[in-house]
Order: sequence, then C-alpha cells, then structure tokens
Amino acid sequence: MMKVSSLAIALAFAVGSSAAWAAPVRDEPITPIEPYVSAKPALVELGKKLYFEPRLSMSGIISCNTCHNLSRGGTDNLQTSIGHKWSAGPVNAPTVLNSSLAIAQFWDGRAADLQEQAAGPIQADVEMAMPHTLALDVLNSIPGYQDEFEKVFGAREIKMEMVTAAIAEFEETLVTPNSRFDKWLKGDDKALTATEREGYTLFKDSGCTACHNGAAAGGTSFQRMGIVRPYASTSPVEGRYSITGEDADRFTFKVPTLRNVEYTYPYFHDGQAKTLEESVDIMGQLQLGRHYTGEEIGKIVAFLKTLSGDMPQMMLPMMPPSSNDTPRPEPFR
Amino acid sequence: MMKVSSLAIALAFAVGSSAAWAAPVRDEPITPIEPYVSAKPALVELGKKLYFEPRLSMSGIISCNTCHNLSRGGTDNLQTSIGHKWSAGPVNAPTVLNSSLAIAQFWDGRAADLQEQAAGPIQADVEMAMPHTLALDVLNSIPGYQDEFEKVFGAREIKMEMVTAAIAEFEETLVTPNSRFDKWLKGDDKALTATEREGYTLFKDSGCTACHNGAAAGGTSFQRMGIVRPYASTSPVEGRYSITGEDADRFTFKVPTLRNVEYTYPYFHDGQAKTLEESVDIMGQLQLGRHYTGEEIGKIVAFLKTLSGDMPQMMLPMMPPSSNDTPRPEPFR
Repeated sequence: MMKVSSLAIALAFAVGSSAAWAAPVRDEPITPIEPYVSAKPALVELGKKLYFEPRLSMSGIISCNTCHNLSRGGTDNLQTSIGHKWSAGPVNAPTVLNSSLAIAQFWDGRAADLQEQAAGPIQADVEMAMPHTLALDVLNSIPGYQDEFEKVFGAREIKMEMVTAAIAEFEETLVTPNSRFDKWLKGDDKALTATEREGYTLFKDSGCTACHNGAAAGGTSFQRMGIVRPYASTSPVEGRYSITGEDADRFTFKVPTLRNVEYTYPYFHDGQAKTLEESVDIMGQLQLGRHYTGEEIGKIVAFLKTLSGDMPQMMLPMMPPSSNDTPRPEPFR
Repeated sequence: MMKVSSLAIALAFAVGSSAAWAAPVRDEPITPIEPYVSAKPALVELGKKLYFEPRLSMSGIISCNTCHNLSRGGTDNLQTSIGHKWSAGPVNAPTVLNSSLAIAQFWDGRAADLQEQAAGPIQADVEMAMPHTLALDVLNSIPGYQDEFEKVFGAREIKMEMVTAAIAEFEETLVTPNSRFDKWLKGDDKALTATEREGYTLFKDSGCTACHNGAAAGGTSFQRMGIVRPYASTSPVEGRYSITGEDADRFTFKVPTLRNVEYTYPYFHDGQAKTLEESVDIMGQLQLGRHYTGEEIGKIVAFLKTLSGDMPQMMLPMMPPSSNDTPRPEPFR
C-alpha cells in the first residue's frame, strides 16, 4: 500500500507534468500534432466503413485501406501501388496519416482537400477502376448502408458527395500525436537522446526545415525535386507541371510529411529510395548541395524516428451484406 | 428510480433467463456455438497480426484477410478469389468464421486442421505465392516480430510452425455465437418468427440436416455435389478425388457451414450460385430430388438468416516496420 505522503508527492508530480505538457514550450519550425476530435462521430464511423469497403472497386477486392493501410503507417510500403488487374501506379502511395494537415492532396496537389481526393482513386483505371455511378448503384442496393446514410445525412439516396464527405471526415481523425519529438517540443527534455537532439539540430541548421516544417514536418509547400542537382527518376510523372502547365512547376511536388517516416518506406514520389539513410543522403546532395557523412546521416535518421506518433487505434469495421440486387464485381472480365 | 419490488422481479427474471441460456433446451441436429476463450492470448494477438500481414505474400499486398475478410463474414464475396498477379483461384474462398468446427480444412479436406491449412495459401502460386523460406527471411528481419515471437515462443528465430500455430490459434477465436437460432435452441421462444420456425422445420424435415448439422450447420462430413442429379460446374476441381484417387470421392466436397450464410455469398465450391434463394433451389433438386416452391424457398432462406451470429470484434492490428535488411516485395517482376 502506498503511504499518504508518497501519494501526495505522486499527485503533485502528475499535476506538474500535466501542466508542462499543455502547450509547446519550444519555438521550432516543426510544431506538435494535436489530436482531432470530430464533432460528427457517426459520420466518422460511416467513413471508416467506406474506407475499408472493397465494394467501391470494380474487382470487389481493393479498398482505400489496400494502398493506405492503417496497420502499416497508412501506406502499402510498395514502390508503386498495385491497382485494378495488377496495374502499376505511376507514383508511390503517400501515407494517409496526418494528410489533413497538408495544403493540398496528391503528390501534385491536384485535389484541394481530402473530400476531393477521395473521389479520385475510386474511379482511376489503375486504382479501383469503379465508375462513380456503379459505386452508387452498389451502395444504394445495400439496405445496411441505406440505413446508415439515412441516419447520418437524413436521406436514403446515397450520393457521391456523401461518400467522400464521410471518408474525408474519417481521414481527419487519422493524426498521430504524442511522438517523442512532440513531447520534447512540449518541454519534456528527456524525450530525446543526445544523438537524436544532435540529429535535429543538424537537420534544422543544414536547411531541411525550409521545406519540412509545420505540424506534419512537410505538406506546407510544393518544391522542385532536384534543386542543386537534377534527380534521375524511373517515373514519367512531372509533378505540378501537369496541373499548371508552367515550366517552373516541372518536377515540382508537394513536400511529403516526415511524420512516421520510419513506417512509410520506400521514399520519394517514385518510391525509388529504399531506406531512410539513402533518402537523407540523396536529399542532402540534390536539395542542399551537401554531402552528409555516415555519422551525420545516422544522427538525422535517429531524429527522424522520433517523429513516430501514436497510430490511430480502431475497431475493425463490420460491413453490411449485399442484397440480391447488388451488382456483383466481375474482376476477371 | 426503480422500486425494490420491481428490482426483485427484474433480478429474478435475469437469473431465470440466465439459467435458461446455460445449455440448449432443444435437442436439434444443429447445436449452439459457444464462445472460444483462448488460454494463450499473446499467441492469439500475434496470430492476428500475421493474419493481416501482407508481407507474407510475394507482392506485399495480399494477406489471409484479403480473401477471408473479417469485415465481410470471413470471405471475399467473389466467385473465386484474386491471387498473385491477379490469378483466379479454382474454388470459392470458404469463410474462416467457425472453420475450427470443421472435420478438416479446404473444400477437399486436404489439411487436417487450421495449422496445416494456414501453410498452404502463403506458398500457393495463385494465392500469396511466397516461398516459406522467403516468408521466414522477411519475418526474421523485422525486430518487432522477433521480439514478439520471443515473448510468445521463448525463441528469437522464427519458424514456420510458429507462424502457422499463431494464425491457427487466432482462427480458433473466430466463432460466431449468439445467433437468433442459437437463442432459440437455448430456450428463447421469441428469438424466431413463425416464418423462420416453419423454414427450419421444412429444412429439417426435407433432409437438409442430414448434411448441414452440428454447431457449424455443416463441416461434419464430405458429400457428393449432385446426388440425385449431376451438377454442372465451370470449375475443373474434382473434390476429394484429387486427394484419395478413389472414384467414389469424385465431386465430393466438405459440406460448407451455413453459419452467417447471409454474409458468405456467392455459394458452392465454385461460387456459381449468386443468391440464397438460388442455392436452396439447386440443393433441393440436386441433393434431395425436391422442387421447393417459391414460398418454401422464402421460408428456408428466412431460417438461414437466423444463423448469423456475433461477428468477432477486434482492434485493427498494428504491424512493426520492416528493417533495412528486410527483403522487399517485387510485385511486378
């Protein structure tokens, strides 16, 4: 049994430590991630089901979670994803985790927000290959979904804006607070080792935070891949140029988040870099004109691994069965 | 506030109803499913991770849960599954739910138990296409898995028997008790409607329970598909004949469970029957020589839907990241 005096000390410690964690006490270019509490929990639950729903694909087997796997840091850890009929995607699947913190969606920023993004892969030929009209025919034929959409939206006829609004609201919840780096930002001096702190100092002082900043340590700007030296990519994509048509935007991509980067290998828009060490080395040379030593790379990688936060914990969703009227997938036709 | 006298009545009712549910009070060929409480929860948790682990496939994208999806009644709801490089499987993926209750595993019973079964799809060319040696190289290169296997098995070197033992113990937990039919079996007269009871009586009296019996309403025997009249299948498989080589076993398959059959469409070993109504019609004609009327089929289907039990509820597993030494999947090579 704990004595009263020990208990009093323990309580005082708890209060003190809680107060210290209330706000960031360090003013840094990377800021802490805060939990997202949705005002619409029923919309989140519906969005979760749809995020895991393979019936939104022509094959009946691919869901958002196939390529943005929430058991694996919100990505598929492939160089490029596998889509309908084993298609190879043109770019590496970015993590869905903390994607709500980015200025725009997709590597080239062609979607303004998560809701606009969610509509894309459902109908993209090399992803889920499902025309929106057919996706809606499927959902509208499933009584369990009709009931749930009616509860959430007050209407029994399901429309694509409802589907994407639900998926987007679920994705808003997929933030990863409480990383060791965030604890350090909030004043916990012991959250980082000396090596990790040195890695962060080097990361900041050599200019990485010019692009990798904000709560997501990225996602706040578009930047050219290969500033000091050109980047040799196996991928044909040209980044924001394909959206704006401006030469200045050629090979310009949204800066990826470094949150949970230990989990989101392989790296870069083409997924060509297999390890964090390789990525740091290439970034130093191509973006900063700097050759990091092996020791420096080790320190920066040690820092990067402190950006892994609490992964979203959730129950596996349960999906309502199709009805006899539900269009069946025909994956081999 | 509840008055004392009401409370006493409520308690008496609760006790009475609890006592009534302790054991089946109806002696029927289908028996209730009981929950499975594992004596090895850490083994179950490890098995759950491995069940959802796409790194056990050559492509890095297919897991046990891809075809035996626990959000969808333990199956993929496709006629035949999609495997490595978009291969079409030869048979319909049977549900994993309540599979522990079957006399053997696979449609042809070629695996004696769940552990033996689990080894098969990992290395099958048209499923996960992953040699066991490579699967073990992958797992043994992941520190998070080494730690967890060491905790569970006391050894840091991961072997295939450990992998399959963990998956099998997880699958033992995937039972679905508490269906309305089970409540009725245990004495709750109001658990079934009159139509559902009539459906069950018809099901039993016309001979369906000769094969669909036991706790899983199936899985207790091998039977020929097409007893009274031959069955025309698009699938080339010949059932148990391919195991035993005996002519008597040609087109003989393990009787599938009817538990949660509302969720496990399409039906039969070749997945040719799209609806429950079609399945009941065909079974009547081919196995029993009986033409059910539309009304009779409706009643039997109403009964079949009372076999849906509590789906296993679980947290989405979180997987440890690969290390720099982990062999990477190369899905397009």
